[in-house]
This record gives sequence, structure tokens and C-alpha cells, in this order.
Amino acid sequence: MKPIRTDLAMESLDCAAAGELPGVAVSRWNEGGVEVTSVEITENAAAQALGKPRGSYLTLSAPLLRERDPDARLAVSSLLSEELARLLPEDRGTVLVVGLGNRAITPDALGPMAIDRTLATRHMLRGPFARSSLNSVCAVAPGVLGVTGVETLELVEGLVDRVRPSALVCVDSLAARDSARIGTTLQLSDAGIQPGAGVGNRRVPLTRDSLGVPVIAIGMPTVVYAATLARDAFAWLGAEQGDEPSEEELSHMEKALLGAEVGEMIVTPREVDSMVQDAAGIIASAVNRALQPGLSEAEILAMMD
Amino acid sequence: MKPIRTDLAMESLDCAAAGELPGVAVSRWNEGGVEVTSVEITENAAAQALGKPRGSYLTLSAPLLRERDPDARLAVSSLLSEELARLLPEDRGTVLVVGLGNRAITPDALGPMAIDRTLATRHMLRGPFARSSLNSVCAVAPGVLGVTGVETLELVEGLVDRVRPSALVCVDSLAARDSARIGTTLQLSDAGIQPGAGVGNRRVPLTRDSLGVPVIAIGMPTVVYAATLARDAFAWLGAEQGDEPSEEELSHMEKALLGAEVGEMIVTPREVDSMVQDAAGIIASAVNRALQPGLSEAEILAMMD
Amino acid sequence: MKPIRTDLAMESLDCAAAGELPGVAVSRWNEGGVEVTSVEITENAAAQALGKPRGSYLTLSAPLLRERDPDARLAVSSLLSEELARLLPEDRGTVLVVGLGNRAITPDALGPMAIDRTLATRHMLRGPFARSSLNSVCAVAPGVLGVTGVETLELVEGLVDRVRPSALVCVDSLAARDSARIGTTLQLSDAGIQPGAGVGNRRVPLTRDSLGVPVIAIGMPTVVYAATLARDAFAWLGAEQGDEPSEEELSHMEKALLGAEVGEMIVTPREVDSMVQDAAGIIASAVNRALQPGLSEAEILAMMD
Amino acid sequence: MKPIRTDLAMESLDCAAAGELPGVAVSRWNEGGVEVTSVEITENAAAQALGKPRGSYLTLSAPLLRERDPDARLAVSSLLSEELARLLPEDRGTVLVVGLGNRAITPDALGPMAIDRTLATRHMLRGPFARSSLNSVCAVAPGVLGVTGVETLELVEGLVDRVRPSALVCVDSLAARDSARIGTTLQLSDAGIQPGAGVGNRRVPLTRDSLGVPVIAIGMPTVVYAATLARDAFAWLGAEQGDEPSEEELSHMEKALLGAEVGEMIVTPREVDSMVQDAAGIIASAVNRALQPGLSEAEILAMMD
Repeated sequence: MKPIRTDLAMESLDCAAAGELPGVAVSRWNEGGVEVTSVEITENAAAQALGKPRGSYLTLSAPLLRERDPDARLAVSSLLSEELARLLPEDRGTVLVVGLGNRAITPDALGPMAIDRTLATRHMLRGPFARSSLNSVCAVAPGVLGVTGVETLELVEGLVDRVRPSALVCVDSLAARDSARIGTTLQLSDAGIQPGAGVGNRRVPLTRDSLGVPVIAIGMPTVVYAATLARDAFAWLGAEQGDEPSEEELSHMEKALLGAEVGEMIVTPREVDSMVQDAAGIIASAVNRALQPGLSEAEILAMMD
Repeated sequence: MKPIRTDLAMESLDCAAAGELPGVAVSRWNEGGVEVTSVEITENAAAQALGKPRGSYLTLSAPLLRERDPDARLAVSSLLSEELARLLPEDRGTVLVVGLGNRAITPDALGPMAIDRTLATRHMLRGPFARSSLNSVCAVAPGVLGVTGVETLELVEGLVDRVRPSALVCVDSLAARDSARIGTTLQLSDAGIQPGAGVGNRRVPLTRDSLGVPVIAIGMPTVVYAATLARDAFAWLGAEQGDEPSEEELSHMEKALLGAEVGEMIVTPREVDSMVQDAAGIIASAVNRALQPGLSEAEILAMMD
Repeated sequence: MKPIRTDLAMESLDCAAAGELPGVAVSRWNEGGVEVTSVEITENAAAQALGKPRGSYLTLSAPLLRERDPDARLAVSSLLSEELARLLPEDRGTVLVVGLGNRAITPDALGPMAIDRTLATRHMLRGPFARSSLNSVCAVAPGVLGVTGVETLELVEGLVDRVRPSALVCVDSLAARDSARIGTTLQLSDAGIQPGAGVGNRRVPLTRDSLGVPVIAIGMPTVVYAATLARDAFAWLGAEQGDEPSEEELSHMEKALLGAEVGEMIVTPREVDSMVQDAAGIIASAVNRALQPGLSEAEILAMMD
Repeated sequence: MKPIRTDLAMESLDCAAAGELPGVAVSRWNEGGVEVTSVEITENAAAQALGKPRGSYLTLSAPLLRERDPDARLAVSSLLSEELARLLPEDRGTVLVVGLGNRAITPDALGPMAIDRTLATRHMLRGPFARSSLNSVCAVAPGVLGVTGVETLELVEGLVDRVRPSALVCVDSLAARDSARIGTTLQLSDAGIQPGAGVGNRRVPLTRDSLGVPVIAIGMPTVVYAATLARDAFAWLGAEQGDEPSEEELSHMEKALLGAEVGEMIVTPREVDSMVQDAAGIIASAVNRALQPGLSEAEILAMMD
């Protein structure tokens, strides 16, 4: 079994043996130019083998996102919105959107930046001016709040206690194994956020188990770890020279690098700032439309001013 | 009774009749170049007459703060630190520092900016590396309602439930009646934060009553309302011409202006951005020293990096 | 003659005697809900009387801008774009857009914020990928003297020498006399920028005389000086009481306040941050469309990413 | 000859044959815990072999900088200040400090961030309040100025024409070959800035030849290119296995990766934001002390407020 550092279920699967793992259902299709991969992990053994909790993981990929193609942005955002709507509970009540990560570390800022563009409505729904076509939404970025000394889990628990949401939607930066996924692939999952995931090593789980409400996670890879990159470069060179390195050699190399400081460095495109900003816009737009089906996109934008 | 728009107890008092109000004890002194005014409101009748809840209000004034004088900064910060330490509970446990206000509106950004420079330690005190000379501190800037859909009170209640602090320290921007107080006067009080105080019209109280723990408030005026300024200018001109306007005339003018949009405008120095930044530094330094008597200032700075 | 602190020619005129000043042509009309005032100053005597250099001054007013009304924004931006296009030289060459002011002082940040959204194209027009439908535009926000040790005029002169633009377009924050003009009125002029104008007291002229190329100025009031506000409040109260103060009394009051620190304070709406951001967007959109008639708005936005 | 992507002369040298290159003088020593390497390139042939123009290159290394060690910061800053003072012309006149790079791309923001903390004085030296103990300094960050559509060279040429400085000091982000140099090594050179150097691929030279005044460059590596990292990882693994890859194999690998998108990615520590901020502080402090020997550090700080 290979210890691969990735937050994408589809990459965990690629690295696992042959795809015929019992307890995992995989399907792939193309929708409006977006390559979709669905991974359903139903058995505990499979979950352990893949290093991912049971649940459904949907991946939306569009290489043109890196070139900031407007059509690709729209296609991914629409698809994400539809799929997110499917995961939300029927009787909606309030939905709490949480943006994880640290705004001051660019590749970890996806969550806070998505929250900036998420329409929060709960405070508009009280008193005589309540608007019935609005669903109730709270949006918080615990790192943005300048919270220090308080675990994200504590803060979110405190909000869940008071707001009593029907579901949490968490937005987070991810690490991938394949650098081509950076900025081009989004993952939607009903399995919540696990410790150790994300760019900034989240330390506590945000899951239905820890919080008592469904937790839907939306993420995009913004980095690859340097150890992973070196491993892949090495495998690629060997293959090209007809002298493919064994899995043992690769694992040895990756582990050695992970021990060194350089292995912990992150590999990211130079344009990471604009890439994260774009992704935050795509995700926030999808979230807003899924949570406010009664509003047009123009109405949502006008209310966000 | 005159409706004066000020968050400073000493100004409420100046406007009230003659100072011989029963249930109010006032004293003034000078300490290291800082003019100190102590107002103790002990009776409900006095509290109502002044429009301020019962409690102690200490004002520290140093006109040189506006000129960014380093000695004045140091003197005010040291005095504030000592007086704050006196208000904190003996058995400290965790102290929760809350920065009120909206970072995107400069004169309302004092709270969030002070939080940026407050040393939070609670997360360092767990696990094997606990440092015994550190007191436990959390620091949060809950931002504003419109950003999150969550009332500040709900968020703070949630944190109080989980963190179980021995006291809250709230930092907030204030409105004054006299423009000379902007940027030169700090108020320290054990009476908490009342609805309607501050620059941004806080809507809910943060008090010992609402939260179950002592709430200490630290604030500095950053604005005067335009209606107040006009009233004062009018009084000044009349006095100069030997034709002092009656209180009725003044009240009439102020109310008329408050009804108009212009009266709600804020009057503030052009250099409000640097003024708020300076004050945030002074307050954070005082808070850090009061909460961490076991650390030198250099150690505090080194830990904040 | 009354010394009125305003950068709007229409306000200088309002304050001058009776409107029948020789050498000044005034006309007013309404266009798509925008109130337009044109002031043409053709004689030196009139220029001196009004404290404004000879030239044409066009004012566009829409009170709904303060409520962020999308229709009002669009109407003002379209009109501004048309009128700006009329002032630009036929044979365009490169146009240099300059955003005056200090980004760190919110009411003075209009210029730099407009530059952020101005499409600069000159660097795209070189080499094999030159796009013929683009006009050549440079955009700079020289910041402030204290930041760099270089006068804005020196920096702009240096650029004019190298870029050889056919015209300068300067964007700047203004001071008004009437607080109702804050955030609701834009002025377009071919008379350039005079020393002493603006919120931050520009010290050197940016004019055709100083630079050798036409200088078009676009500005919006973001503040009223406190002395002006008090004067107006005083006049208003007197009028209401049937005891209108004389011009002498008003002048006396204003001068006395200007001598005091409080008179130099600025009066501004609480929401100044979003107001300036909105205005920067309106102006940049107008500038982009005037300078790039061959591009649709969507193409302009796509190129700005 | 090996094409190594580095802006550090000492790394170019490490990669070149054996160190006995004629026309290059190298010396190394340790000063106050800082490892200093001096590389003097005196011959054109050596310059070509190393891919660096003739001139002197001084490297200051202190691994503790990455741990934000205050002593290491102080030692590096003091040494840099002394060595910079040695390169400045006797008769100082005005010195122009230029911060290259793009503030919106964190690893490229070193120059603009250093300019934020550089004391500009030229504007204080005019008029009756001229202070004789001050040297004249201008500081500009052309990317910060919001300049677009204008080449940095054009803007700097324009300033040189008007300001007539005796020397330019350029601060820039660098790329290194060895990831251990990121955030730990500063380079000081009298050879100016070459096209292609830096993180953002500067396109035009800033040199004595292009500008007519001495150009001193100060830089720190903030990234390694991914192709370089993979090459090093590969060499390291081979060496460990007793099967050292030939130089040909390594070059082949690096070139292949450079062709691919992944090779152009940057490798950087997760904490790049605070690392760049620290380095900007160290460099600005050294520049300020070298340019203002008549002021104490406290006086410099007070004047920067």
C-alpha cells in the first residue's frame, strides 16, 4: 500500500491496486466539457485501503480553468451547484457555510476568499422585513475572524449550538498528487473534513460524527508537496529510459524527502494568487445558487454589495 | 435632560447638571502627563440620568497622542495596562479578548486591528509543550453581522460556552461629543458594551448580564457625529457674540440635523487610518502586558511573529 | 467675495453673485435621470472670481448613487464615457491615465482605486501579437510624496517624456461644499488639476501648461470640510428661525473654525469605503469604454483579469 | 556547460568546473555567525561561463533566518548595511531605491515590501526645514505604483532623468538552485539586474549601461523552480544508491521538465508570506542605516511613521 499525500479520492484510487477494490464504486463521464469522476466508498475496508472515510466523492475537472476560460468556469460552477443542491437536506432551515484556512497564506486562502463572496441571509430573515423567497444562510471563515487561541472545531461547535443549521458546507484548499490537478479540479464530498487534510494541516475533524449535522466539503487542490513532485519526476524519467523504478524505490525516495525540509515545501503555480481568487468565485457562485434557488444570479450579486 | 451622542461617561457627566448628581463619584488627577478622570456610577437614577449603566469608567487623555508622540503612547499604554490588570479576576483561567467593529470601515476598525496585535496563547498551553509562565488568552474579532448572518452576541456566547473564560475584554471604536477627544482619549470600564454604542451601532449588549462573565470594555473615540459638531460650532459662535443660544435652540438644531442625512455623517481627522492603527497598538500592548505579567515586552513581540 | 472650499465649479458658481458673471456660460439639463450642469469659464476675470482656471466643467449628479442603484450607476457611467470621449484628441496615440491620491487614506483613495480597474494596453501592442482594435493606454497611481520622495509632477513628467501620450486623464478625490454632493456627483473638466485641490492638498499643478499635453480631470467629492458643514448648519438654522445670518457672520464663523483643528476635520459618510469603491468602478468603466470603443464591456472585463 | 536556473553567483560557481575558473576570485569567511561568500568576476569569459555579468557578488547566509531568529536577523542586517555602504558613491547626492516585483504574487513581493519600510527623505530636504543630517533618498516600487502599460525601465529612466541620483539600489526576489537558500541567503552585487533574473522574469536590464548610474542589487531567493528541485532529488537518490546519475542524465531530466508546465512551477515554503515580510524588514533596515549614517535606528523608525 502506498502512502500518497492527496486529498482527492480519485487520486487515492488511481494509486490503489487495479481499481477492482471491493466496496468502491467508480464511474466517469463528461458533462458540458467537464470531466466528472464519482467515487463511492461504501465499505470500511475500502475506506482504510484508500485512506479516505466512507462517503461519496465527486470530482469535476476542466483543464481550461487554469487559462481562466469563462465557459469552463461557468460549466464547472453550474455543475457544482446542481450536485451540491442534491446533497443538501430537503427541509433546509439554516445552512452554515464555513471557509477553512488562513487568508495570510495564499494557497490556504481558498476558504476565506469563498466566504467573502457567499451571500449570508440569516440576519435579513428576522423582523418585519423577512423575505420569504430567501433561504437562511450563515457564512463564517474562522481564520478570517482573527480567531486565535480557539480551535476551529470549538468555534464551529459554538455556532452549531446557537444557529442549529440543517447542514454545514465547508470550503477548503487541498493538496493533490498530480500537479495538473492544481487549479483545474474541484471535489465535492459528503464525508466532511478529516484531520490532516488541506494545505494547512487541519487538526480536528469537521464531520457529522463530531458536529451532529451533515457536513458537505468542497475543495480544490492548490499545491502538490515537493516530495510528491520529485517522486513523480523520478518515475517519469525511469519510464522514459526503459528502466522503470520499482514501487519500493519510489516509496523510499518519497519518504526520505518527506523527512527533509525540502519535501515539506509546496509546489504551486506562480499565478497562485489569481488562481485561488478565481476558484473562490466559482465555488461561491455555485454555493449561492444552490442555497438560493429562488434568486437570480443578478439578484444575488445585488444583495452582496 | 439633553440627548448627547457620546460613548464617554465623562462627557455625559459634563453635559449633566452641575456635577452634583447623587450616585456619581468623580475624581480627576494627572499621572505621568496623562489626565485621568474616574467616574463611578453607583445608583440607578444616576445611571439613567447619564444614559450609562452603573459601573466604573476611567478615562485616560493625552493630546500628544494625535501627534504620535512616543512618550505619550508609552505613558497611556502603561497606565491602561495597570488599570486593566486591576479589573481582571484574581484567578485568571482563560481571558477572551473580543475586537468589535468592521475592519472595512476605517473608524470602526479599532477592535479588529487591536486583535491583530493581541497575543493569543490558549492553543500553546495544551500538550507537552505547555509553558507555565503563560496565561491563557483567546482573541477574536467577530466582524459584522452582514458578513456572517450571525449576531456578534451569538458568536461570543458560543465561544464563552466552550472556552469558559474568567472574563471578557472588549475593544471598540467610540463616538465622542468633543472632537478634541478623537484619537487622544481612551476609556476603560467594567460596565460592558451597550446596544447603540460604538461607531457602527452595536445592536446587542455584551455585558455580565447577557454573558454570565465580567465584561471589561476598552474604547477610543474615532468620530464625532456631524449633528454634534454643528451644535457645538453654533454654541461657540453664539457665546463669542455675547448671544448665547438657549439649550432649547441647541437641542432643536441638533435634532433637526439628526433627522437629516448630513447629521448622521461622521467627522473624523483626515489621518484616521494611521490614528486607528496607533490606538490599536497602544491598546494591544496594554492588554498583552496586563494578561501576561510573566513575559517581558520583547518576549511578547517575539511570540507574536 | 466668499472663500468657499470646494473643487466643484458649479458650487463656486452657486456661491458667486447672481450667476450673471460675464465670461461664464452655464447650462443645465437632465439626461436619463442624471442632472447635468455645464459651466464654461472663458474669461480670466471670471476665472479669478470663481477661483477656478478657465475651461469647461461638466457635472453629473444622481442622488441614487448613494443608494448604490444599478441603473443610476449605469446612466452616470455611460454619460461620463460619452463626454470623456468628446474631450479626447482625435488622433489618439497613447493615453496616460493617472490616479491621484493616497490609497491608505480612504476618502483620498478614489484615484488609485480607479487605476486598479483601468485597462492598460500599451504593453500588449508591441511585438507580433499587437491587436489592432486596441487603443494604447498606460495607467499609473503615483501614490504620495511622503511615500517616495518624488513629487507626483516629477514622476508624471518622466512618464510623459517616455510614453509621449496624446492626453492625460487624471482621476482624483474632491472636496465639496454641500454634503449632499458626496458620492453623488462627478465632475469632468479639461482644466487639469490645480494645486490645493483634492482631499489631500495636491501641491503641484497637473495641467497642459505644466506638462505640454491636454489634461482631463475626473473627480468626485468624498468629503466636506467640517468648517463648511458648520457654516451651512448655522445658515440653515438662522433661515429657519427667520433670522438669516449675514454673509459676514458666516464668513467669520467659517474662518474661525478653519483656524481651529476641528475645522480641518473631514465630514464623510460612515460607508465611505464602499462609496469610494463604487465610484472607482463607475469612473474606470467610463474611462475604459471611452478609450476602447472597439471593445465590448465583456471583452474589457475579460482582459482585466 | 550546465544551464542552471539560479540568480545567485555562488550557485553558478558551484555548478561550474572545479572552481579554478580564470577571471573569478572567490573567498569565504564567517562573520558573527553569518557565512559570507565573495565572488568577483573580472573577465568576460568567466562571466559568460557563469551566465552572470562581471562585477562583485557578496552572499550572506544564516540558516537561522528561517526560524526567525532575532540575533541572526540583526547580524545579517548589520553586515548587509556595512557592505552596502561600501558600494555607495562617496559624494552621495540623492540615492534612488527601487523595489522590483509584483506585490500581488507573494514570492515576488520582496521588493515592494522593502520599499514600504524604506525611509524616503528627498521631499523633506527642500524649503526652510531642510535637515542637514539627512541624506536624500527616493524610494519607488514601480509595480506598487499601479503602473501598467509602462515598462519598469521606462519609469526608472524617467525618474533618473528628473531625480539625477548618484546611484540606484534595487531590491528583488530571486530564484535559487538549492532550496536551503530560500529565506536564508541574501546577495549584494554591483552588477545590477539582468533580464530573466528574479521570480517574475524581469524583461529589461537595470544596469549602469542602461541607466548611466551605478546600480546595486540586493536580493533573496524566495523560490526554486520545480525542474531544479526534481533534478536535485534525482541526483540525491542516485548518489545514495551508489549509482550516481551522469551530468547528461540530469540535464536531460531538467530540460524535459522545463518543457513541461510542472517544471515552471515554483517550490516555496508554506510560510512564504511571513518569510518575505521578514526579509523585507532586514533589507530595509540595512538600506536605511547605510543611507542615513547620521540617524539612529530609533530616529529612522520615528520618521517612518
